[in-house]
Amino acid sequence: MKRIMLTVAYDGTNYHGWQRQPNGETIESVLNRCLTALLREEIEVIGASRTDSGVHALCNIAVFDTNTNIPPEKLSYALNARLPADIKIQGSKEVDASFHPRHCDSRKTYEYRIYNAEFPMPAERLYAHFSYVPYDVERMKKAARYFEGTHDFKSFCSTDTHVENTVRQIEHVEVNKNENKIVIRAVGRGFLYNMVRIMAGTLMEVGRGNLEPQDMERILAAKDRSAAGPTAPACGLTLTGYEFL
Amino acid sequence: MKRIMLTVAYDGTNYHGWQRQPNGETIESVLNRCLTALLREEIEVIGASRTDSGVHALCNIAVFDTNTNIPPEKLSYALNARLPADIKIQGSKEVDASFHPRHCDSRKTYEYRIYNAEFPMPAERLYAHFSYVPYDVERMKKAARYFEGTHDFKSFCSTDTHVENTVRQIEHVEVNKNENKIVIRAVGRGFLYNMVRIMAGTLMEVGRGNLEPQDMERILAAKDRSAAGPTAPACGLTLTGYEFL
Repeated sequence: MKRIMLTVAYDGTNYHGWQRQPNGETIESVLNRCLTALLREEIEVIGASRTDSGVHALCNIAVFDTNTNIPPEKLSYALNARLPADIKIQGSKEVDASFHPRHCDSRKTYEYRIYNAEFPMPAERLYAHFSYVPYDVERMKKAARYFEGTHDFKSFCSTDTHVENTVRQIEHVEVNKNENKIVIRAVGRGFLYNMVRIMAGTLMEVGRGNLEPQDMERILAAKDRSAAGPTAPACGLTLTGYEFL
Repeated sequence: MKRIMLTVAYDGTNYHGWQRQPNGETIESVLNRCLTALLREEIEVIGASRTDSGVHALCNIAVFDTNTNIPPEKLSYALNARLPADIKIQGSKEVDASFHPRHCDSRKTYEYRIYNAEFPMPAERLYAHFSYVPYDVERMKKAARYFEGTHDFKSFCSTDTHVENTVRQIEHVEVNKNENKIVIRAVGRGFLYNMVRIMAGTLMEVGRGNLEPQDMERILAAKDRSAAGPTAPACGLTLTGYEFL
């Protein structure tokens, strides 16, 4: 028996998120089905980031145990041949049998993309949130700095979830504009449910002038979801980096 | 009666190309249907580039005549409200009643994108051709120079079409690699049917070492489609620029 780690890229548009659920196809259920068919063993993967419905990833992590004789590095090719075009493995390797992707220190990078132009652009629609209102990116940059460091992010956590500890360490949040694209990049040791999308929705309010950059202090201190801005749409969010420390 | 010019962006993935045809939805047929419903007049657009099935555009051009009182600049908003997410107008304005987009001098830019990595990336699959083989981009750059200038491009024209004059003026062909993406950008006064895709397929053969850059001279001189490389897949091609001179 060996434990295999997969790096998984997907376009989340047509999935009900990562995690297996009774209704609707998920990334996890497709992986389990294709691995079970390939290896002729009942496989259940353990995912690192349980991304939401519609969220994308370049490099989510899944591990599973198998008795297969297929060399670990070759599994990615064999599995890709069975996976649909919107889920593709970017690499596979053997890891220690004790390795659990949610029980070890990691650094994740998320990017939230806004396509900001007068008219929506079809080729951007799946991977960026379209908005035609003007944003002051300098204000958004200033506001983003308030998120850096260790804070209680309870105001930036969906009320649909129950976690005891809402303190998280965010290493870096940057906002950049390049032509019609605004990208919010957040790097941290862990994120709460919907945290990046609520941060993005709040930064957009700052960019539009509905909130001041220094309001971020008050919103963090409130520890109340209703103090922050709206949850930005899922399509704009992509998990772009995953590093085990 | 006034003549209106639309700048049309689309994701060609789900369409049988620009031009109306008996089977399958086309960009043109969707525009005609939405304009007819919006303006309550029978509208038939005239397109500038009749792009192939699966090819994308940021800025194709369509003109039509109408008696509407909607201000020309506002038509883009009204029409976008009726169009599907994969076809969106990027601007509308009134033009001279004699303006015909295929009977006037223009400069078009096409980009052919190759996603060149070990594994396919889901978020690239719709707008780039995936290839895992190594390409020598310097060789491709050298080969691309042979296309610049005025040449008989008969070897780079699909045999499915019948045009008398296969001489075209190509201003510029450049090949660039940025991380995993190779982009072939061709700028010219006009292109034959499948010309950019055959140029891309031939440049890929050069990049793989199956042809030499100087073979381009021989292939052009042959005036025979079978002398050139394969037609590269449609998904990699996007019409990115349109300028009337």
